[in-house]
Amino acid sequence: MPEIRYNIITREWVIISTERAKRPEDFAKPNPRRGTPATYEPGCPFCPGNESQTPPETLRISAKGSWQVRVVPNKFSALDAEGELRRHNTALKREISGVGIHEVIVETPTHDRTLAQLSEQELGNVLSAYRQRYEAVALDSRVSHVTLFKNHGERAGTSLEHSHSQLVGTPIIPPQVRDRMETALRFYDERGDCIFCAELADELMDEVRVVEQSDHFCAFIPYAALTPFHLWIFPLRHTATFLEATDAELADLTGLLRRVLRKLYFGLQNPDYNLSLRTFPREARGMKYYHWYLSLIPRVTRVAGFELGSGMFINVALPEASAAFLRRTRTE
Amino acid sequence: MPEIRYNIITREWVIISTERAKRPEDFAKPNPRRGTPATYEPGCPFCPGNESQTPPETLRISAKGSWQVRVVPNKFSALDAEGELRRHNTALKREISGVGIHEVIVETPTHDRTLAQLSEQELGNVLSAYRQRYEAVALDSRVSHVTLFKNHGERAGTSLEHSHSQLVGTPIIPPQVRDRMETALRFYDERGDCIFCAELADELMDEVRVVEQSDHFCAFIPYAALTPFHLWIFPLRHTATFLEATDAELADLTGLLRRVLRKLYFGLQNPDYNLSLRTFPREARGMKYYHWYLSLIPRVTRVAGFELGSGMFINVALPEASAAFLRRTRTE
Repeated sequence: MPEIRYNIITREWVIISTERAKRPEDFAKPNPRRGTPATYEPGCPFCPGNESQTPPETLRISAKGSWQVRVVPNKFSALDAEGELRRHNTALKREISGVGIHEVIVETPTHDRTLAQLSEQELGNVLSAYRQRYEAVALDSRVSHVTLFKNHGERAGTSLEHSHSQLVGTPIIPPQVRDRMETALRFYDERGDCIFCAELADELMDEVRVVEQSDHFCAFIPYAALTPFHLWIFPLRHTATFLEATDAELADLTGLLRRVLRKLYFGLQNPDYNLSLRTFPREARGMKYYHWYLSLIPRVTRVAGFELGSGMFINVALPEASAAFLRRTRTE
Repeated sequence: MPEIRYNIITREWVIISTERAKRPEDFAKPNPRRGTPATYEPGCPFCPGNESQTPPETLRISAKGSWQVRVVPNKFSALDAEGELRRHNTALKREISGVGIHEVIVETPTHDRTLAQLSEQELGNVLSAYRQRYEAVALDSRVSHVTLFKNHGERAGTSLEHSHSQLVGTPIIPPQVRDRMETALRFYDERGDCIFCAELADELMDEVRVVEQSDHFCAFIPYAALTPFHLWIFPLRHTATFLEATDAELADLTGLLRRVLRKLYFGLQNPDYNLSLRTFPREARGMKYYHWYLSLIPRVTRVAGFELGSGMFINVALPEASAAFLRRTRTE
C-alpha cells in the first residue's frame, strides 16, 4: 500500500508510491540535449572574449591570467536595481515597487562544462562568489532577502546553456521562506529546539536516507521527499544564515556538494536539476530557530495538475531506495 | 519599473514584469503536438470498444445509444481503494496509509476532441459527472478531501491524449487547501467577511481584470496572477463547497467555462493547461469563510529555479493586458 508522509519543515504531504515505484536505475535516461555543445560559442554572452555583452562585473575571480568566475547584473533583470522602495497598500491590495538586485554568476569560462565537472577548487570559487555577493547584496537597505539558485538544463528552466547561477535580492521575504520561518518559530515555541536540527538528528539516527556525510554537512533524501532524488544538504552546526558559515565549513561543503553532483551526473546521466540555497534573512543571524540549507531537485519527473491543484506531491520513488542508489553510485 | 503584487488569498508575492512584459499575442504559439491525432485510436483505453481495458465504471452518462461520459477507477491509482486508514505518528514523523479513491473521468468518446470543442450540453455532462462523483467519494469515511483536476496537453503533464479529468479522494486535507482554510479563517476573524467574497467584490469594482461574467459566476485574472492568463472562476453567491452549487448554477457555469475555454483555444492556439476545482471539504458545507472556485493555469511559460527556490513567481504578462486580450477574443 502507498504511504502518505508528512514533511514537518515544509508542512507538505507526499504520496509515496511504494508499489508502483520505479527502480532508481529507471530514472537514468540520457538527456536529449540540443546538438553537441562546444567548449566555446561565439554568440554566448558568458564565453571569454564576449565580456562586453554583459553589464560591468560586480565580482571576478581570476584564474590563469583570465577569469574562472564572473558575476554580472542580469541583463534581463526581473527587478530594477535603481529606484526607491515604495509600498502601496489598500484594503485588499498590497503592492511594492519592483526594486532589487538580480545577478548572474558565470561559473566557468568553458561553454560546455557543467557544475559537476568543475574541479574542487573551481567549485570552491563558485561557492565563494555566492557568499561574497550574498553578503554585498544583503547590505542593500531595500533588500529584505536574497535567493540564490541554479537551473541546470532545459527542463529546469535554463534559457542559456553556459553554466551559471542566479542571485535575486528582493524587497520582500519570499513566501516559502516566510512559511519556513513561521513553522520553525512555532516548533521552537513548542519544543525548545530548532526544527532543522531535530530533523537532521532524526535522519542521522535513521541512516537509511543519508547519501553523503562530511565533517560539517550531511546530504540526505528527506523522509517525505517531494520527488525522486530530492536532496537536502544541512550544515551539522546550528547556523541560521549562510553568512555565518566559516571558511572551513565552506571548503568542506565544496567537497560534499561536488560528490553529490557527480553521483547525480553518473547515476542519473547528467539530469536537469534546480539547486537552491535556502537561507534566512541577514537579520536572522544568530537566531536559535532558523537554519540554512541547500535543496536540490532533479527534474526526472513532471509536476502536473494534482500537485498544482492540491499542493500534494506524488513521489514515484521510495526515498530509502533513492538514497541507497546514490550511496553506491561512483563519484569519479 | 516592475511591480510586486500580493495575492491575499494564496499569500503569494508575484513579480509582475511590466516592462519586459510580452504582448498577449506573443504567448499564442501553435503547440507542436506529436503527430495528428485521430478521432479513434485502436490502442486507447478511453476509446469506445475498449471499455474492457479499464476497471468497471463507477458512472456512465449515456448519449445516442452509447456513452458520452464514463468514470472509471484509475488503473494506475496513486492510492489504494481498499484497506483501512491507519495513522502512525512519532515525535517527528507523520505517516498515513495510502488509502483513497483515484478515478478518471473520460469526457468524450471521440479520441481527439478537447474540452473546448465539446458542445454546451456535453460540457454540462462533464460537470455533472464531476459533481456526482464528488458527492459519492466525499461520503467515504476514509476520505478527508476530494481534489478534481484536469491536465490538458503534454506540458501540463498528461500521459494520455484522450481528453479526461481526474478525481482524487485523499485521507488528508491537501496542504494548499489547509493553507487557504487558515488564511480564510484568519481574514474572517479580523474582518467578519469571506476573503473570497471580498476579493470578488474588489475585482468586480476594478473591472479591468474581469474576462467573463454570467448570472452566477465571474472569470477573472487575479490582481497578482502567478502566470500569464492564470484564471480564477468564482461563484457570485457565497458557497463554501462545490456540493452546494444548485443545478441552475451548474448550468450557468457550463456556459461560462465553455466561453473561457474557447477564448483560450482561439486566442492562445489550444494551449496546454491545468484546470482544478478548489472546494473546501464536505464538512465545511454552509460555512461563512470558505468559498469554492475553479483555477485555470495555461502552461505558456515554464516554472524554474527562482519559483522553486523562493515560492515567488515572475509573471511576464500584465494581468490587465491578459484580461483585455481574452475579453476581445472570439468564442466561436
